[in-house]
Amino acid sequence: MTPDPADINAAAARIAPYVRHTPLLRLAAGDLDLAFPVTLKLELLQHAGSFKPRGAFNRILSAQEAGDLPPAGVIAASGGNHGAAVAYAARALGLTAEIFVPELTTEAKRARIQSLGARLVRTGATYAEALEASRARAAETGAMEVHAYDHPAVLAGQGTTAKEFEQDAPELTHVLVATGGGGLIGGMAAWYAGRARIVSVEPAACPALHDALAAGAPVAAAVGGVAADALGARQVGGLMFPIARAYVSDAVLVSDDAIRAAQRLLWDRMRLVAEPGGATALAALTSGAWTPPPGARVGVLVCGSNADPATVV
Amino acid sequence: MTPDPADINAAAARIAPYVRHTPLLRLAAGDLDLAFPVTLKLELLQHAGSFKPRGAFNRILSAQEAGDLPPAGVIAASGGNHGAAVAYAARALGLTAEIFVPELTTEAKRARIQSLGARLVRTGATYAEALEASRARAAETGAMEVHAYDHPAVLAGQGTTAKEFEQDAPELTHVLVATGGGGLIGGMAAWYAGRARIVSVEPAACPALHDALAAGAPVAAAVGGVAADALGARQVGGLMFPIARAYVSDAVLVSDDAIRAAQRLLWDRMRLVAEPGGATALAALTSGAWTPPPGARVGVLVCGSNADPATVV
Repeated sequence: MTPDPADINAAAARIAPYVRHTPLLRLAAGDLDLAFPVTLKLELLQHAGSFKPRGAFNRILSAQEAGDLPPAGVIAASGGNHGAAVAYAARALGLTAEIFVPELTTEAKRARIQSLGARLVRTGATYAEALEASRARAAETGAMEVHAYDHPAVLAGQGTTAKEFEQDAPELTHVLVATGGGGLIGGMAAWYAGRARIVSVEPAACPALHDALAAGAPVAAAVGGVAADALGARQVGGLMFPIARAYVSDAVLVSDDAIRAAQRLLWDRMRLVAEPGGATALAALTSGAWTPPPGARVGVLVCGSNADPATVV
Repeated sequence: MTPDPADINAAAARIAPYVRHTPLLRLAAGDLDLAFPVTLKLELLQHAGSFKPRGAFNRILSAQEAGDLPPAGVIAASGGNHGAAVAYAARALGLTAEIFVPELTTEAKRARIQSLGARLVRTGATYAEALEASRARAAETGAMEVHAYDHPAVLAGQGTTAKEFEQDAPELTHVLVATGGGGLIGGMAAWYAGRARIVSVEPAACPALHDALAAGAPVAAAVGGVAADALGARQVGGLMFPIARAYVSDAVLVSDDAIRAAQRLLWDRMRLVAEPGGATALAALTSGAWTPPPGARVGVLVCGSNADPATVV
């Protein structure tokens, strides 16, 4: 199984100079009109506005340590957040970056990628098509692909989120995480390895892990709805799937309306601007799609904020 | 001198069930293009979007303990944040609240006060005029005034911000705080009592503490600029002034442009939505208006977020 906790510990040490240890916000039961308290990890305050730099830095720094970085630099396909993270990491490390995004990537995310100095290419209807185009380009240039989720170093980097969460909130019994391609939840589940139950939350319009667990293998799923630019991988990664089978206890689906309502609650009650994908895990609680068992101590990762703030009120 | 640390400890115990212990965000030197790291306390994630509930709850709960709460409930004048806090506290405690705000109070703040169930009265050009009107009304109704800053219980409540900040970041040598009427900085300076140097930051267009320290007594100052709805007290409180004389080491002024730039940086680098008054303390660093001495370890209170998010990008 990849990665293991030693890989995640190594990733944490490797990326520490480059990423933020993001804070917790401990909410009383009433703060979200729920019957139980909730601990949020504010990963949306990470560099480049999402958890993605953890995996990007670990992938790139690992390659650099191994002497494997080509002169053409790095290339990535992304719905937006991973692209911003790779652009951020490349700038910090003095590398060239090319980022391929699909048509559905928002203006806010495209502008951010460009402001970080990467070359932006907009192509294809979905992430999967942008990925294909980026691979054709990489074959020409020799740039190193930084996959958005299905690479051991990326999973290990994202797993450092769980290491921090457990260090700061060791009491948690259940951790809710949004799932796209599964790099984040895969890395986190590998860290916790059953010490806390990992609950996957996906938009009903992007049910890649839900469908994979039902089918017994990664399968192509629908890509749509308000969070498609963050959670719209067509299919979960092969590396994360065995980890999910072992350690993801529930695969919950939420409606787009529930996601929008969770965004508004995060602003109204906490003054946090989360993008739809960043509010998806919380939406499972606030919509009632998932209810903790008695005695549970619940954590939620708020994982991204690359939205136009005018859209969350 | 009022309050003393025992008052602040008592306030902290009294208000603990009602307020959030807000988190820190530790920034590396490069995160704000500065030459030194900075520790932010994210008090903008407090209930009702600013630090103000600390003082409001302490004032109201102290009166309740003493059997001094009249049947007519509470009344307050405010640029907006204190009004939202009093409305929030009154709702939490089942009390009636009337809030008087001046014309310059933003739509975002007025809407929030009303959404919290308080009766809103809009009157006068500035906070000082709204205060006068609220006092005439209180004389009719018998409601208890919850002053926005110049009351010992309010100062002690705001001082709990410093108690948390010191507990979580005991290494700080300098703490930057925005000053309006001075309730927050007065309470915080009373807590630190010289253990960290307290740096006051005001908009050049609202220099009440700067002018008071220069004059040797609270004096009427200008009220204007982008942060007037939060920091636009005409004159600092009499209770805070001796504390400021003893413990505020610098009274820095910043331009409105510097405040807007700090708001944009907080969004761009950290995805935090601060209102102008909430970004004012940071603006002293990011504009270069205040530079720490060698070896300083600098903390900044980010104190409010009641802005329309569309205005910060």
